[in-house]
Amino acid sequence: MSTAPRPTLIPFVKGHGTRNDFVLVDDRAGTLELDAQDVRRLTDRRSGVGADGVIRLAPSSTLPEGREVLVAEPSAEWFMDYRNGDGTIAEMCGNGVRVFAAFAESLGLADCARAPFVVATRDGVKRVTRDIDGWYCVDMGAWRFPGGQGAVTDGFDARVQAAGWTTGRPALSVDLGNPHTVVAISDESELTGLDLSAAPLVVPVPETGTNVELVVPLGEHRRDDGAVAGRVRMRVHERGVGETQSCGTGACAAALAVRAWAGAGAPDVWFVDVPGGTVRVRVLASGHVELAGPADLVFAGTIELSGRP
Amino acid sequence: MSTAPRPTLIPFVKGHGTRNDFVLVDDRAGTLELDAQDVRRLTDRRSGVGADGVIRLAPSSTLPEGREVLVAEPSAEWFMDYRNGDGTIAEMCGNGVRVFAAFAESLGLADCARAPFVVATRDGVKRVTRDIDGWYCVDMGAWRFPGGQGAVTDGFDARVQAAGWTTGRPALSVDLGNPHTVVAISDESELTGLDLSAAPLVVPVPETGTNVELVVPLGEHRRDDGAVAGRVRMRVHERGVGETQSCGTGACAAALAVRAWAGAGAPDVWFVDVPGGTVRVRVLASGHVELAGPADLVFAGTIELSGRP
Repeated sequence: MSTAPRPTLIPFVKGHGTRNDFVLVDDRAGTLELDAQDVRRLTDRRSGVGADGVIRLAPSSTLPEGREVLVAEPSAEWFMDYRNGDGTIAEMCGNGVRVFAAFAESLGLADCARAPFVVATRDGVKRVTRDIDGWYCVDMGAWRFPGGQGAVTDGFDARVQAAGWTTGRPALSVDLGNPHTVVAISDESELTGLDLSAAPLVVPVPETGTNVELVVPLGEHRRDDGAVAGRVRMRVHERGVGETQSCGTGACAAALAVRAWAGAGAPDVWFVDVPGGTVRVRVLASGHVELAGPADLVFAGTIELSGRP
Repeated sequence: MSTAPRPTLIPFVKGHGTRNDFVLVDDRAGTLELDAQDVRRLTDRRSGVGADGVIRLAPSSTLPEGREVLVAEPSAEWFMDYRNGDGTIAEMCGNGVRVFAAFAESLGLADCARAPFVVATRDGVKRVTRDIDGWYCVDMGAWRFPGGQGAVTDGFDARVQAAGWTTGRPALSVDLGNPHTVVAISDESELTGLDLSAAPLVVPVPETGTNVELVVPLGEHRRDDGAVAGRVRMRVHERGVGETQSCGTGACAAALAVRAWAGAGAPDVWFVDVPGGTVRVRVLASGHVELAGPADLVFAGTIELSGRP
């Protein structure tokens, strides 16, 4: 905690990953306190900068959550301090961590093409690399089917009913640290026409709510490198948020469900078309899943926040 | 037209008037060409800066429309080159011209508290002053009731039917250079609950469409200076756009209609509460109407646009 008055003119960078967008603040000194009101001012799309969330880059040693990470992983020098648009604290964000890595590179703090950038987050350590296409790749951690092998054999353990459907359709639950329910749609025009202004009904009703992914499997294709990859188109209704243009864990859940439905021999790599762009999901031998996608820094600016002692 | 390559890093300022927001570009040299693609990139709320429109400040002498204005009004040195978010050219914008004046003041080109700032626009000359409260005031020009005195005596010359209404309700047409249809709602909770996701039906169907203002008259009150002012709450569905947080000419139309309904002796000054804030409308003896309201410059930045020879 600094006792010097806060500067009122704050430099920032605006960035997005598949149209999930963020205000990025360079706080290498670790002295900038952003309260909920500051975050709401920054994320307001008309009277502020406008974004889904704010990400502050700070030394891990300056936050209790960062010091905890440093015990296990001393190389996690920089902390991704993520806040939702409403000012609440969030643990992690799959699109946000890619944009955070691009921001750290722009500051000369990382070179993700040369060595994994080790990021401290409230959800532990994340390692970000940059591939030959310029996409940022991050290990999103362990996943599981909460319905167990029976659900995978059946192909479902839940039912989802979207607006306009006369009945629920079979769906598969996927856990990625947060809950997802994936339901297949037979063709792209039905997916495009769906009304997702309200949350689809999920049965059995999940205790803590669930994100719902509506997916159209688009088959498999051989890539330039000879490997076979699958492709999925998806729309997502995020728990407590509504429909979004992109959801990192949702893309992982969609790929994992479609891969399970495809059965033995299905590819481990899936391209997922979300409304905001395309990401790539890779199922790792470790039992983890990797998410890759673009990260774009759009512009730099300065904004006045109220001064505080 | 400059033959030098365009610089790729463009400085800008973001501003808003009652949450109608703009990207402002200082082009005092008059050499910056912004095409529709540039405008769409600037106004995209996730992959760009985000705004309802782009306003370029340029010398009037560098545009044909500006040179035309200069013939009649040689002091109209600066031109407000306004583009809608989709890249199309617009004549004028009541909220935009206030923000343009605040931007010109920030550049040292005007002091609206001392002398009217004479702005050249595609709709002719606009004079902007700044009052003691810091609000910017602009003469919006002539207005009329296209239905004539009969419509005013009756109180209506059209009918409006919003979603959920079983029948059309009486409404009054107001022309402010663009067409408006104003319909009264009896209480604020009905106004708040209205679904304006689709354009209300207007009968007779206006040939070129119409903006629709839904208003709740809130009575009259004596101000600090002894004068009496009226107050109106309004929501607006803009022709070809949808519901917006604020519409300058719409606020003028709302005040003019409610004033006509109030009959002889009604005040000339009306405060209009729009979803994005409050503006003030003054009916002038000249047959014109003046719009006053806040203008806020939010932040400054630089963004890369594609270079062009």
